[in-house]
Formats: sequence, structure tokens, C-alpha cells
Amino acid sequence: MDRTESTWARNAPARYGGVEAGGTKFVCAIGDASLTLLERVEFPTGGPDETLDRTIDFFRSRSGNGGLAALGVGSFGPVDPRPDSPAWGYITTTPKPGWRHTDFAGRLRRALGVPVGFDTDTNAAALGEGTLGAAQGLHTFVYLTIGTGVGGGALVGGKRVHGLLHPEMGHMKLPRAEGDDFEGACPFHGDCLEGMVSGPALHARAGGPPNRLPPDHEIWTHVTHYLAAALVNITCVLSPQRIILGGGVMHQRHLFPRIRRRAQHLLAGYLQSPEIIAHPETFIVPPGLGDNAGVVGSLALARLAAEQAASRAQKHSAERTI
Amino acid sequence: MDRTESTWARNAPARYGGVEAGGTKFVCAIGDASLTLLERVEFPTGGPDETLDRTIDFFRSRSGNGGLAALGVGSFGPVDPRPDSPAWGYITTTPKPGWRHTDFAGRLRRALGVPVGFDTDTNAAALGEGTLGAAQGLHTFVYLTIGTGVGGGALVGGKRVHGLLHPEMGHMKLPRAEGDDFEGACPFHGDCLEGMVSGPALHARAGGPPNRLPPDHEIWTHVTHYLAAALVNITCVLSPQRIILGGGVMHQRHLFPRIRRRAQHLLAGYLQSPEIIAHPETFIVPPGLGDNAGVVGSLALARLAAEQAASRAQKHSAERTI
Repeated sequence: MDRTESTWARNAPARYGGVEAGGTKFVCAIGDASLTLLERVEFPTGGPDETLDRTIDFFRSRSGNGGLAALGVGSFGPVDPRPDSPAWGYITTTPKPGWRHTDFAGRLRRALGVPVGFDTDTNAAALGEGTLGAAQGLHTFVYLTIGTGVGGGALVGGKRVHGLLHPEMGHMKLPRAEGDDFEGACPFHGDCLEGMVSGPALHARAGGPPNRLPPDHEIWTHVTHYLAAALVNITCVLSPQRIILGGGVMHQRHLFPRIRRRAQHLLAGYLQSPEIIAHPETFIVPPGLGDNAGVVGSLALARLAAEQAASRAQKHSAERTI
Repeated sequence: MDRTESTWARNAPARYGGVEAGGTKFVCAIGDASLTLLERVEFPTGGPDETLDRTIDFFRSRSGNGGLAALGVGSFGPVDPRPDSPAWGYITTTPKPGWRHTDFAGRLRRALGVPVGFDTDTNAAALGEGTLGAAQGLHTFVYLTIGTGVGGGALVGGKRVHGLLHPEMGHMKLPRAEGDDFEGACPFHGDCLEGMVSGPALHARAGGPPNRLPPDHEIWTHVTHYLAAALVNITCVLSPQRIILGGGVMHQRHLFPRIRRRAQHLLAGYLQSPEIIAHPETFIVPPGLGDNAGVVGSLALARLAAEQAASRAQKHSAERTI
């Protein structure tokens, strides 16, 4: 702790706060202007009051030295990330006890008095990978996480995707793997992508922790099929320059080459792009930031919020001068 | 003809040319500054030399009266629509005889001496619907056409989607409809979306023209399933504010309410958006421009190309003044 605090003191002027808000744990972090992590704490997600108070306390206790320039939040959902919506910054219809219709971003903004950037956890992770990770220099790419749930975030033309709501890539409909009779574990859809390959789905399939299964187990063949089919569909819909696969299930690194081969097989040479045909290892990749994609992304959201606030202030000041 | 030519003469200053380039026919059109169609001709698609010469002749013969400000092309593909690519404006790996690696946009630009906007036929149709059709005022939406082939275009955050290549929504992988044993008609993938619901697929299923089948025929139940599953996947990946379904197969208007219900059934209440839950007739809609979406979109591409050229010229002139 001594080391990070001294690092922090040397970088006083522009400091950003980031919150990676997951259904099971919260990560709060402080970063400098280049989004280098200076401090990071984790605690379990409880009810909204308790958890948001703890988050606010953390950032208040670290705000002495010039304060935070802004805060970024990448949250579990569903959320409302649309800047022009009256429910912007809310967690909306989540089944998570107590969290339904929680004004997440607004509460932090009022308590801390700084601009707040807000998005889904996966859009934040995609932004993190685009800023400092495996998608640097790209404008159109996807970050898909396969863990307790399955979710995807995307940047298209350099902007995070927000439409009617936000991407929910985990719930795509896919053709069944040959010989797979698992009914699926999604409480809404049964055998959607998440229902077939999430951590809990694999636990149910295996009758225990899936990380003990050998790489040649049939379950991994099925997982390979569903993930490859999902990547094919993502590619058909938004033609990403790269797809990043993160989350606990993808710690099984043997899946990467198999998913690439299966996706090529399913595409059957239809998309004649060198990245797909000759170099799929550049198209389907692990995160450059490992498990820090989300927290770095939340710091990047903070930096964007600070820049937008500065730009608004400048415009306002110019208007007053005239 | 007299009438359109006199209309044209009254609107001399800003006239745009548009080409909707299909695999079976070309549509060439002239529009005014508000993209009103002033003239429109169609001819069958032949080899590239013959067809592009005819296109060039049409626009040259109409260029006497002040000339065209710009030309827009929405083309069958695959194409390269990425502005920073050396192959920009090319038709690339099409199986269509003679058209492989044709410098479509470049040839028109050299022959006519005007700025050329270029994109896929479906991105152009999406742009047309966003400009004057069923997606006006929206920033994130999809246009899917179901005809000889199945293809989709999209705007996300107000910009047409170009990533690694361009969307190819017709080739998504979907779960089979119950009781459907049709092997699929896509030469690459068999039972992808296009393989199950394109015009030729329906012809093969029905053993004749599908438009003679009664609305309660089982084939329409299968078509409903695949299209609804495709729309669910599109919604999961990019969360469009609206999806427009066009093309010859969608002239079967009885499909619209059935597809909406089936999509709701497949989503199972997971996406709690009023547009999906309560008003799916505002979410899944026919084109506002009917079969003119593509040609209006090509005129909109021309207008964008003219605006970009003007903005570049202004910047260049400002730099010279300094």
C-alpha cells in the first residue's frame, strides 16, 4: 500500500476513479492520466445501500490530494447507458435482490461531486481493451466474456454500442452441437449461448467444477461449437476487426485454437479476409489486459467523462464571453 | 419522360446520381437536393464492362444541365467499402461471372469526374430508410432484405457499419425450426439464414414459386422461426432501435405479425423494453420507402460524398490562405 500511495502522490493532478461493478464483487480503483492503476480494492457485492456507501467512502477517503477528476462505472445489468435517457445511469430490471431500479451513477455523482461516465461492464471492458489492451488502434471490435454469465460489449466506428438498450450477446440462439443433449441453464431461454457455456452451465454439465475436466473432454468440444457459432453470428452482424474472449471459462487456453478452427469451418471460406482465412490468431484473441480489462475500462470511462465535462465547460464559457 | 425532364430543369443546381447495383438488375437514378427521385431507369446486369459503360452513358447523357454534384453507389458484393482501404470501391470475391475484383467506384469517378460514395446495397438501403424512410430520427438500426439473397445493413451511432469487411447478416447460424428437415440452399453453409429463407430456398422447398403458397402453409411457419431467431440475434449483438424487413419475400405481409410474436416468444421477456414487450409493431417494421430504399440510399450516399468533398475543399482552401 505504501508503494501505491507514494506513486499516487507523484501523479497528483489528473486522477480518475473506476468502479467495476459485478454481481458478486465490486472493484474500485484509482488511476492516473495514462490509466495506470495506482490503487485497487475489491469487496463483495451486497445490497445497493451498503455497497454504494462503501464505494463512496473509498473514493472520499482517497480524494484528499487534489481530488478525483472524474469517475467511471462499468456495471452488471441490465442498465440504462443511453446519455439522453431519463433513466441514464440506472440499473434497471435486474433479478439481483434489491438492485432493481437503482440510480447507480446519479448517486455517486451527487455524493462525490464529479462527472461520472457509465456503461455496461462489457462495454467498459471493450473500451479498456481498445484503450490499452488487445484492440488498440481498431475502431470496430467486440469483447465477449464467458464466466458466471456471458456478455459482450462492442465499439463500432470508435463508439460504444447503445441502441434500444445495450448488447446482450449472451442470449443468442444457436444451432445445437451434434450429440449434445444438455437442456441448457439459462432461466429465460434454456439453451441460448449463456445457457450452454457459462460457468454455471458447465458446472451443471460436469456435475462439478469444470476446470477439472481434461482438455479432450466432450464438454469442451461442445463449448467450442457454441462459442464459434456465436462468433460467426457476431461477425455476420457487425463485421468486427477483432473479437476478444475473456472471463473465467477462457482461462482454458486450449479453447482458443479450437474455437478459431471451428469458426473457420462454420464460415466455410465465405468471408475472404486474411484475418479470418490465414491469421485467425489475430482475429480471435485473449484480452491484452487479462482480468483488468473491466477496471481499466472504467478508468477510461472516467477520463472520457472528464473530457466531455471540460468540453462542455469551455463551450459554456465561450457562449458567456459572446 | 417529358415530365421528369422538365422537373429536373427547374431543380438544376444540386442534382445527385444514384446507382443501386444488384446481381440481376441495375437501377440508375437522378435526385434533387432533398433526394426526391427525378428520373429512374433499370436495365439487366450483364458483364462489368457492358454494365458500367451503360451506367456511365446514362449519367453522361443527363449531365448537360449543370452536371451532377456527386454519385452514390450501393452495390451487390462482397465489396470493399472501407474508406481507408486501397481496394475501396471494388467488388471483391463475388462468384458472379466477370465481376470479381472490379474497380466499380473508381471507374465511375474517373469517367464522370465527380465525388463517388460507395457502400453495400444493404448499407445504402439502411441509409435511405434512415434519411427518408422508416428509421428517420434513429441512430442505431438495421435493414434486412429477404429476396434472392438475404443481407443486412446497419447504422450504429449514426454511422454505417464497416469493420473487417461489412455485415453479412444472411449467413448467421440458427437453431432449426421444429419439424423442418430442409437441408438448406446456401452453397457455402447449407442451412444458414439465407439457405433457409431466401427466395430460391423457398422455391426449392415449395417445388415452385413460393408466392402461391397460402399464408397457413407450414413453410411460412418455418420462415417465421428463422427470421425471428435472426432478429433476436441481431438484437443481442447490436441492440437496434428498430429493424426494417424488406425484399421480395417480405411482400408476404402476413409474416410481420407472426415474426413479431415469435421474436417475443424467443426473447421470453428478457429484454424489458416497451418497443419489444408492448409495441413490437414499432420495432419490426416494413420499409418506409418500399422497394425504393436502395435507390434513395444511393442518392443519400451521393449527397454525403458531395458534402465530404466540399468540406475537404474548404479545409484545403483554408490551409492555402494561411
